[in-house]
Amino acid sequence: MINREQLQEQIGRAAQKVRDTNPMAGSITNTVTVNFVANAQIAVGGSAAMVYLPDEGEFLAAAGGATYLNVGTLLPIYEETLPRTARALHEGGKPWVLDPVGIGIGSLRTKLLSQMKEFKPTIIRGNASEAIALAELWGLEAGTAAEVRGVDSTQGVDEARAAAVALARFTGGAVAVSGEVDLVTDGEVVCHSRGGSHFMAKITGSGCSLGGVCAVFAATAETPLAAALAGVQAYNLAGARAEARVDAPASFQTAFLDELYKATPHDIANNPFDIEEA
Amino acid sequence: MINREQLQEQIGRAAQKVRDTNPMAGSITNTVTVNFVANAQIAVGGSAAMVYLPDEGEFLAAAGGATYLNVGTLLPIYEETLPRTARALHEGGKPWVLDPVGIGIGSLRTKLLSQMKEFKPTIIRGNASEAIALAELWGLEAGTAAEVRGVDSTQGVDEARAAAVALARFTGGAVAVSGEVDLVTDGEVVCHSRGGSHFMAKITGSGCSLGGVCAVFAATAETPLAAALAGVQAYNLAGARAEARVDAPASFQTAFLDELYKATPHDIANNPFDIEEA
Amino acid sequence: MINREQLQEQIGRAAQKVRDTNPMAGSITNTVTVNFVANAQIAVGGSAAMVYLPDEGEFLAAAGGATYLNVGTLLPIYEETLPRTARALHEGGKPWVLDPVGIGIGSLRTKLLSQMKEFKPTIIRGNASEAIALAELWGLEAGTAAEVRGVDSTQGVDEARAAAVALARFTGGAVAVSGEVDLVTDGEVVCHSRGGSHFMAKITGSGCSLGGVCAVFAATAETPLAAALAGVQAYNLAGARAEARVDAPASFQTAFLDELYKATPHDIANNPFDIEEA
Repeated sequence: MINREQLQEQIGRAAQKVRDTNPMAGSITNTVTVNFVANAQIAVGGSAAMVYLPDEGEFLAAAGGATYLNVGTLLPIYEETLPRTARALHEGGKPWVLDPVGIGIGSLRTKLLSQMKEFKPTIIRGNASEAIALAELWGLEAGTAAEVRGVDSTQGVDEARAAAVALARFTGGAVAVSGEVDLVTDGEVVCHSRGGSHFMAKITGSGCSLGGVCAVFAATAETPLAAALAGVQAYNLAGARAEARVDAPASFQTAFLDELYKATPHDIANNPFDIEEA
Repeated sequence: MINREQLQEQIGRAAQKVRDTNPMAGSITNTVTVNFVANAQIAVGGSAAMVYLPDEGEFLAAAGGATYLNVGTLLPIYEETLPRTARALHEGGKPWVLDPVGIGIGSLRTKLLSQMKEFKPTIIRGNASEAIALAELWGLEAGTAAEVRGVDSTQGVDEARAAAVALARFTGGAVAVSGEVDLVTDGEVVCHSRGGSHFMAKITGSGCSLGGVCAVFAATAETPLAAALAGVQAYNLAGARAEARVDAPASFQTAFLDELYKATPHDIANNPFDIEEA
Repeated sequence: MINREQLQEQIGRAAQKVRDTNPMAGSITNTVTVNFVANAQIAVGGSAAMVYLPDEGEFLAAAGGATYLNVGTLLPIYEETLPRTARALHEGGKPWVLDPVGIGIGSLRTKLLSQMKEFKPTIIRGNASEAIALAELWGLEAGTAAEVRGVDSTQGVDEARAAAVALARFTGGAVAVSGEVDLVTDGEVVCHSRGGSHFMAKITGSGCSLGGVCAVFAATAETPLAAALAGVQAYNLAGARAEARVDAPASFQTAFLDELYKATPHDIANNPFDIEEA
């Protein structure tokens, strides 16, 4: 089992390598928060590119260091784009992040998220309700029934622990469950990362942009766990620092992106988290 | 006829109930301002979710407390999505807000806005030119000919008074006409709400995000008039407060969303407005 | 050959006329940065409207003073929308700006950008790699081979000088190549405009929104060169002023839009640039 210090070192190296190499992480993501995703990816040192068409998704899958797929605002063409892109990523051995936002809304979303099982996302990023619902959809042992309402979670991260561990063991990757405290697991260890801000829930796109940032770190990290935890740590650090400077959500969003940009690899690695056996 | 104090009490109760219950108001809205819509809805205490596909629109119609339909950047699939969603809202007795932005541009927009007549939106939110053009399109007595240029109004709110009253009497709901002073009517009374800022016209999405916020209040208000006026009052209050703190539009947008978040139900109810018979 | 003072006067007059007449410049542009495009267009004194459908593109082409076409996040319908809109602009003699963002990604983008050759954009706005790649795609003498990676340039503006001059001579319009120093040419003269900020590359949409702003100035300018250079000068001025006030990218974006709003026609005309024979 990896220990805390080893994991911190991996996080620091991944974050430093992002700064040094400016890796491109393409996205197919929702229109609501796409701008926030791109700016967050750039803030941590990555490069962003967004597309909708099938062959463009395949292009980014091949050209990028990692890819972010978010099912937030599905368009009809996604019926082709998402499976083709995910297949290209899986077959090309490229890391990718799945964000199952809005799971349960509509038939295409269910179909697409079912198909994604075959392509084993390197990182799954969602709130507790989404993680539980995805484990259920994929027929994995989850323990708790999902309660999904729109795009917001109604459940806490520890309710999703069994689901997250089951998902990670199935994919061989990592799962990051966002909440007041964030849970990140690779099926062997479970980490809890602290910090962040209550304003995170008062702006749209905290979760989506975290998914995009995890993809940036996935382009350089040694393991899916280090990539997912690097993203979560960066968010918790920047969120806490931003909250200290503002008193309302729009100012928070600006301060948060600024702090994400200012956070050093050392800062990100040293944000408080604990680690235990899964 | 409802009096000013009764209406203030309804506004205050609606705004308080939003804070207490965090109602979800789904949207089908344009890509230009969708992020602003979501953040404004969250700022006043609501929850946002955006979709494009027909069965997803029906899902949100059923799951949400109210829904916001904005025809700003039409996609081909909207030919199915908007009528199916509006029908689900109308048949389910759910409140919804129509924003006829860009009325007059293109054949699909005209077709869709014509179809919306049957589904009687609870609240219609637009600028003066849009309100006049919609009343004309629906064959209602409007008094003044519409002059539409792109998405901006070239006419004042009082030029749209007859159109707004006619629309409200037809739907049995409320109509909010945005301008320097805002006009809100339910066909029985006409209210003028004051405040806001000249910077509102210097950022994109003031109108769209107001529509989304009216949907949030429609989820909890006792009447369409109270919901529409609550949204307008919150905007006028936050706009005036934000303007006092800044000297340019991008800073204004941040300050505006911050002030929207800080505005209490009491503040919103007590923003200056007058009421008279329609 | 036009001299520096004449060009400054043209820039000043174009910028003043934008303030006086609030010209509408419609856009078909990507979803990532569409909000930034609209707010930048409004900040300099223009009016924005965005659409996706073919007859709506034709409507804006006819109704607007100029139009901005950006191939950033293609949707299937663009296969019809972009050629029909560009044809309407070309046949109607209306100025328009082409932004060949992401050139090289996917088959539809290549097809559309090839088709655009026939419709001779008034202004082409891109980074160095995009300008070189477009000249190659159109079979023009470019001198340097393009290196495209996602949406970011890997080449400097002077590497794109031959390509930019060739493009401008072919279209009879102007070409603006964005970089640390910006190059603008009409095929007869080459201007270098200075200023800006390193933060421009740390936010998404600097280039797209510049394209939209060039379209606004194209609605009033006497020549394509004056329009393109007015946009570039406004950006370099606002960028430099904003950078002096902030230490991170999200604050920069807010300050930049604020400074764009505050920049006077005199300021824009007098931002440092030089001019030489092409």
